[in-house]
Amino acid sequence: MNYDQIFDEAISRLHEEGRYRVFIDILRNKGAFPNARCFAGHNGPKPVTVWCSNDYLAMGQHPKVISAMEEALHDVGAGSGGTRNIGGNTHYHVQLEAELSDLHGKDAALLFTSGYVSNDATLSTVAKLLPGCVIFSDELNHASMIAGIRNSGCEKRVFRHNDLEHLEELLASEDADTPKLIAFESVYSMDGDVAPIHEICDLAEKYNALTYIDEVHAVGMYGKRGGGISERDEAAHRIDIIEGTLGKAFGVMGGYVAADKKIIDCIRSYAPGFIFTTSLSPALVAGVLASVRHLKESSVEREGQQAAAELLKTKMRDAGLPVMDSVTHIVPLMVGDPVHAKKISDILLAEYGVYVQPINFPTVPRGTERLRFTPGPAHTAEMMDDLVGALVEIWDRMDMELAKAA
Amino acid sequence: MNYDQIFDEAISRLHEEGRYRVFIDILRNKGAFPNARCFAGHNGPKPVTVWCSNDYLAMGQHPKVISAMEEALHDVGAGSGGTRNIGGNTHYHVQLEAELSDLHGKDAALLFTSGYVSNDATLSTVAKLLPGCVIFSDELNHASMIAGIRNSGCEKRVFRHNDLEHLEELLASEDADTPKLIAFESVYSMDGDVAPIHEICDLAEKYNALTYIDEVHAVGMYGKRGGGISERDEAAHRIDIIEGTLGKAFGVMGGYVAADKKIIDCIRSYAPGFIFTTSLSPALVAGVLASVRHLKESSVEREGQQAAAELLKTKMRDAGLPVMDSVTHIVPLMVGDPVHAKKISDILLAEYGVYVQPINFPTVPRGTERLRFTPGPAHTAEMMDDLVGALVEIWDRMDMELAKAA
Ligand SMILES: Cc1ncc(COP(=O)(O)O)c(C=O)c1O
Ligand SMILES: Cc1ncc(COP(=O)(O)O)c(C=O)c1O
Repeated sequence: MNYDQIFDEAISRLHEEGRYRVFIDILRNKGAFPNARCFAGHNGPKPVTVWCSNDYLAMGQHPKVISAMEEALHDVGAGSGGTRNIGGNTHYHVQLEAELSDLHGKDAALLFTSGYVSNDATLSTVAKLLPGCVIFSDELNHASMIAGIRNSGCEKRVFRHNDLEHLEELLASEDADTPKLIAFESVYSMDGDVAPIHEICDLAEKYNALTYIDEVHAVGMYGKRGGGISERDEAAHRIDIIEGTLGKAFGVMGGYVAADKKIIDCIRSYAPGFIFTTSLSPALVAGVLASVRHLKESSVEREGQQAAAELLKTKMRDAGLPVMDSVTHIVPLMVGDPVHAKKISDILLAEYGVYVQPINFPTVPRGTERLRFTPGPAHTAEMMDDLVGALVEIWDRMDMELAKAA
Repeated sequence: MNYDQIFDEAISRLHEEGRYRVFIDILRNKGAFPNARCFAGHNGPKPVTVWCSNDYLAMGQHPKVISAMEEALHDVGAGSGGTRNIGGNTHYHVQLEAELSDLHGKDAALLFTSGYVSNDATLSTVAKLLPGCVIFSDELNHASMIAGIRNSGCEKRVFRHNDLEHLEELLASEDADTPKLIAFESVYSMDGDVAPIHEICDLAEKYNALTYIDEVHAVGMYGKRGGGISERDEAAHRIDIIEGTLGKAFGVMGGYVAADKKIIDCIRSYAPGFIFTTSLSPALVAGVLASVRHLKESSVEREGQQAAAELLKTKMRDAGLPVMDSVTHIVPLMVGDPVHAKKISDILLAEYGVYVQPINFPTVPRGTERLRFTPGPAHTAEMMDDLVGALVEIWDRMDMELAKAA
């Protein structure tokens, strides 16, 4: 048994496929985002513009968020010092859970250390409590949902992406008495399309299934108060469990689920991923509280972000760049090859001071490698013109095809 | 299928066993820890003394930690805004990984959002990469290790707690060519005993097994620079993977593993729990950097904490309280019944302003319910006398037996 050799081979496979990942080492400039400093492959920091942050609304640098975190740091210190049950339940946690349950019109909510953990812990725990549960999972569901489903040990039926007929076919083929859970996302973050929530809920009602929605890329972003697509579409009351992150539009870190009190109490009491871990730092929780409260009242950030995304899509389309169909704030540009995607990203960083990460397998299926842009309220039209100009030049240099200008 | 009823029953089972958990809602007072404010069951905050924090060295309120976090907040903002691969790799992360690999004398380290996730992601990923791997797991291993082992899908052999003969028996019964991984902790946090690291490494060498140690309750606390029991016992070079938390002695939040570069590169590239999640907030990482650096140089906190633990154990023993054998900083007091443990804790909080959480199943085996005290450098002899006095009074009130004073 030569362990070294096995680990070596595992790494070599990544290099061979051109998907060995190099992390770009950056520091964002608070107050001047999307400007940042990059530390990779040269001496000392170099200025870059960040085009791939999930801090969609730049709430991570909002003065209310920063000062709330500072205040908490000075009031109670850095870490919580314990699990939620043993010493790590602060008043901030209790308040944020109330704020989040209100955001989604549910009577309870539960915090986790990340959106990943909230998906993994909740799906596995809820499904495990339902004897013989079968889980119906959209084929494009996020890795964290897939982990939760696998870790539940339940049977899984994968339905084609957003395909209601296929979902119904699978639901109908199970016994009426079998507990069923439909798990899907609202905004699919690599394509930017949206699930037909009401239609999925219709099927859930017809076949008596529970519904679980991942609103990670939608909370803070859609709906009048930032309650996500389920708020925008007035469907929140039809969903049993709504999951979200605190690390994207809310700008900080952490994850949560909102649901009926009973369900939350079960997760709280039975999920190892919730029970056996130090709770979120009170400073983070205080920052999120400020962020959620602000975005419940203010739509300026949401509107600015949607406008920026529309403008960038138009500019790219006008330049003939292969921007993918997206009905949301996400602007994916199809490349279709991992080596090309990485090369374009490298040139953008080295020659243009533009930071956008190539998206490759396993984040997207092989052959659909892409660049994914997330313009925000702080990306100016001028920055967009520079970006599109750079992309057109690189497309040209690499002999890649541009569509006829519309 | 009546979902409500199933969830109801799951909650009722907890009430029946007396282990339904009520989270005590507190805020610690920075600069004055272990003093805190409690919000539970009355109007407005009430002062309490915290006896069950895992912020063992009070680093969560250390001025260096707080100011480093503040600086980072102002320099780069609240959240990282992305996964490590997509926009969330900051210079702080890179620096902290270097600091942690140095701490353990390894050539690389990798950050996770928590110690739970580091155990779960690393164990499942490493074991999965080794075809046919068999994992040897101490029976008292933490829930997060058990999750990682289960999620690896590998065969598991559980050895009796710290029992070398049993471990050897199990190792010997596997084929020589089978990949093997021995997973154990250094300090077992509910009992306070320590693993025989060198002897386990001897067996690992004899049977060509990899070794994985959870040093969550030891990093920052043991060894000249806070490298844990593996540093104290000069065994770090014999362990393949060392795992730790940033949320206990280091006072903040997060987790990590340190190992050979190749192994770290594999985890970084293959572990969904690492790849598909927003990276730690740079403010947290900056705080930990300050904490780790401080504890590499300063032993005052460690010594103060050890002295406090010794003193409390002595005082309890002298009063005839059933303090459990513990060779570490952990001071567990055996109760042996979930209802009693909860009642003692409730009286302490309501009548004495003492906060110590009852520890019940599933954190410890049924019938071994206990109170677990973690005195720190800031708990005074007077606080201890008050605590011991209160405990003796309650023991008496509840007709529980005290040993003859030593
Ligand atoms: C759809 C989806 N769900 C969940 C997550 C995990 O959330 P978090 O980053 O808070 O762990 C992500 C991305 O990170 C995601 O894209
Ligand atoms: C032995 C052990 N390992 C791992 C963990 C998890 O670490 P974290 O709290 O950072 O998730 C804990 C406790 O929380 C623990 O006691």
